Amino acid sequence: MRKMNPQLDRHGHLHHFLTTEYLPKDILLHILNVAESFLPVNKREVKKVPLLRGKTVFNLFFEASTRTRTTFEIAAKRLSADVINVNISTSAQVKGESLLDTVSNLSAMHADMFVVRHAESGAPFLIAKHAAPHIHVINAGDGSHAHPTQALLDMYTIRHFKKKFEGLQVAIVGDVKNSRVARSQIHALNILGVNEIRVIAPKTLLPIAVEKLGVSVYHDMEQGLKDADVVIMLRLQKERMKGIYLPSSQEFYNTYGLTPSKLSAAKSDVIVMHPGPINRGVEIDSFVADGNSSVILPQVTFGIAVRMAVMSILTGQSK
Amino acid sequence: MRKMNPQLDRHGHLHHFLTTEYLPKDILLHILNVAESFLPVNKREVKKVPLLRGKTVFNLFFEASTRTRTTFEIAAKRLSADVINVNISTSAQVKGESLLDTVSNLSAMHADMFVVRHAESGAPFLIAKHAAPHIHVINAGDGSHAHPTQALLDMYTIRHFKKKFEGLQVAIVGDVKNSRVARSQIHALNILGVNEIRVIAPKTLLPIAVEKLGVSVYHDMEQGLKDADVVIMLRLQKERMKGIYLPSSQEFYNTYGLTPSKLSAAKSDVIVMHPGPINRGVEIDSFVADGNSSVILPQVTFGIAVRMAVMSILTGQSK
Amino acid sequence: MRKMNPQLDRHGHLHHFLTTEYLPKDILLHILNVAESFLPVNKREVKKVPLLRGKTVFNLFFEASTRTRTTFEIAAKRLSADVINVNISTSAQVKGESLLDTVSNLSAMHADMFVVRHAESGAPFLIAKHAAPHIHVINAGDGSHAHPTQALLDMYTIRHFKKKFEGLQVAIVGDVKNSRVARSQIHALNILGVNEIRVIAPKTLLPIAVEKLGVSVYHDMEQGLKDADVVIMLRLQKERMKGIYLPSSQEFYNTYGLTPSKLSAAKSDVIVMHPGPINRGVEIDSFVADGNSSVILPQVTFGIAVRMAVMSILTGQSK
Repeated sequence: MRKMNPQLDRHGHLHHFLTTEYLPKDILLHILNVAESFLPVNKREVKKVPLLRGKTVFNLFFEASTRTRTTFEIAAKRLSADVINVNISTSAQVKGESLLDTVSNLSAMHADMFVVRHAESGAPFLIAKHAAPHIHVINAGDGSHAHPTQALLDMYTIRHFKKKFEGLQVAIVGDVKNSRVARSQIHALNILGVNEIRVIAPKTLLPIAVEKLGVSVYHDMEQGLKDADVVIMLRLQKERMKGIYLPSSQEFYNTYGLTPSKLSAAKSDVIVMHPGPINRGVEIDSFVADGNSSVILPQVTFGIAVRMAVMSILTGQSK
Repeated sequence: MRKMNPQLDRHGHLHHFLTTEYLPKDILLHILNVAESFLPVNKREVKKVPLLRGKTVFNLFFEASTRTRTTFEIAAKRLSADVINVNISTSAQVKGESLLDTVSNLSAMHADMFVVRHAESGAPFLIAKHAAPHIHVINAGDGSHAHPTQALLDMYTIRHFKKKFEGLQVAIVGDVKNSRVARSQIHALNILGVNEIRVIAPKTLLPIAVEKLGVSVYHDMEQGLKDADVVIMLRLQKERMKGIYLPSSQEFYNTYGLTPSKLSAAKSDVIVMHPGPINRGVEIDSFVADGNSSVILPQVTFGIAVRMAVMSILTGQSK
Repeated sequence: MRKMNPQLDRHGHLHHFLTTEYLPKDILLHILNVAESFLPVNKREVKKVPLLRGKTVFNLFFEASTRTRTTFEIAAKRLSADVINVNISTSAQVKGESLLDTVSNLSAMHADMFVVRHAESGAPFLIAKHAAPHIHVINAGDGSHAHPTQALLDMYTIRHFKKKFEGLQVAIVGDVKNSRVARSQIHALNILGVNEIRVIAPKTLLPIAVEKLGVSVYHDMEQGLKDADVVIMLRLQKERMKGIYLPSSQEFYNTYGLTPSKLSAAKSDVIVMHPGPINRGVEIDSFVADGNSSVILPQVTFGIAVRMAVMSILTGQSK
């Protein structure tokens, strides 16, 4: 498997970071360990290391996301890279240039790294396949497929607070069907060996044959959260809040919104996570989001360190 | 007063820069003095000092303003900071995230400074109150409330050309009612001790009880400009130029537009200022804007140095 | 001529780079030679030289172009400059500030260089005339007038592959009428002394009296491409593809689109160039665009080096 993985070079080293699926456990743990070494950098007076000095990182956002773009921009700048933000929807694509011609063009400028966000699943893989060999591609979210740096920062957060993955009960709640975050988390949690991954959602928000991903399925919060060590709430996109998927956001909140009362079924030292931005009163109650169990803001902090780790590992600066 | 000022830390040092109101005179003068020390940096071959190296400055513009954003971006880059431009109107806010969640999120990325422009008065205060303790907030203009760096660069300009504040007659002309610039100027001029602050405007463009700000009110240019040392013209927003406030922009120009003839009532060495961008033929005649009395372009130059000074003082790099 | 050229200072050195027209041959060759010295920088681990450290480069894009803006941003950052991107259409111009007031304002911030893209022919000249004396202006494309850095990277590409200009037959195909690229290429090719410049286009896509530019006119591809050493395809703007200029894009492709069959009239070692982004199946067939004769991607690579060369020559860092 390792040999054929499109993310690895022929020595088995990480060359692109496109998905957590099929990645060897040692590579995931290595990213977490390198991230841990970067955490202090972000607290120093001079929050900068020269590992990517003189490298050019392109943020290629075919789908707008200031929040995600910002985290990659900070990570790259703290590694001393030059960062070029390219919002492609408003430019070349409008002029009719094809995705692959855009990529060839940017490759020819001697880019070192593409951070790609795209509304279509698979686009970063296509770009990785087509880019010049020296270029590293990071998937910053593609369609409903994968968002591996988000999953890795979630793994970092779990390890930080739980010290291990073995034996943990992890519940993922909400719109699993449309969530690239959930897919990448499930793969990573399986690779890292937690005890059980539960998904809790109405049938309309679960993908077909979700059990094949290696999860237990629950439709009831009290049962699904029972004795959970980790609860991961997913963001409910506004466009799903009414119509064929759900009667209303209020209805969703009543059944699946995380309240202190529902959370009481979990272990007393449960941690609550959310990829953000949170919809208060839709998928999560403010008492939980701002409460003692919440580790939503530490996730953000760890996210910078994890992205710095991925960037420095891909470019061979952190062995 | 000093103890309770939300801009000062418990040692009385400037921690945020939100308004000129209630600031001690020594702090205003200190900013001007530090700015003076930065002026030569902007003329050097290498226009850069390492005072904010490794610090992350966020330009949080909830209201678009390329001009103002640019001045802060230049100031931060000349101090060697990493700058992240975030235009929030087109991103997180659209997704429905609350202002305070956005701020918490950016705080968790270990930001060092937020430069905030917001259409609602008070937003930068809310952000300052909610941000992590290590973060410094600069108000880059909030609603019709305050624009303190603009006021300080105006004070710098006055001191540069007049060498003192004592004894000066300063006239502020135009749309005082809607001007955050005018409010911040009036507070600063009172603190720095000019002899008289006059506002000259039609009643419809003056705030209620404007005298309580410590100004004399004039509705006639010849009387208001008589023997003035400094004339500050305010920008007339396009949306005010007709309707309930004013009959027309031509009418405004006839009565309050600064022409050479009207300016002749002032002292012969009067200086004319304007925060820009100027509306030629509305609030100011080109003969005045481009004439010998105009110090509009020096204001821009001093603005970079003043913003560098504020940034370096807030972060403790200029004592 | 050299004395009166608005691009040259009184010592005959390049001060602005606005057009290839009337430039002395030695200056064009000097740019190519300096670019050659920068080419290795773009392949190094640390793709950065400190020649423009502490200088502030403004990308003033009055007309949006992510692709062109990106190449200048990369070039400036690899020279260690601070880069400020200003998209003016969405800001100051909307507020009604005049072009020249915008320029005065940015000059007063001690800018060192303006890279200007503008929809109106001549705008960069106006800016160059009005900017402070220490500021250098680069024309990044104005109306249908000039795009000199594109022309110079094309000259670089020709010299790279053909080793000389003398004796070459160069064919330029397509919408010459609306192409600033073609105009700048024709001037440069004439100055550098190629043997013959041919333009190949329907009459509706040729400017009036095009022969006066020093070109031979062809309306037939087979005749025009006969024994050509270099073929430069121009981009056909979408808005020209139907209506008064052309029956349809398919019709254009049939007659003027570069296919392997049409290209066979040229010399066997012909090189095919295109300023990008290419319209596959409109002006060029994919077999040609991706074939052995195509040097479209090397053009992009050389473009970074040429822009670095122009920037460093203008600022006196490369003598």
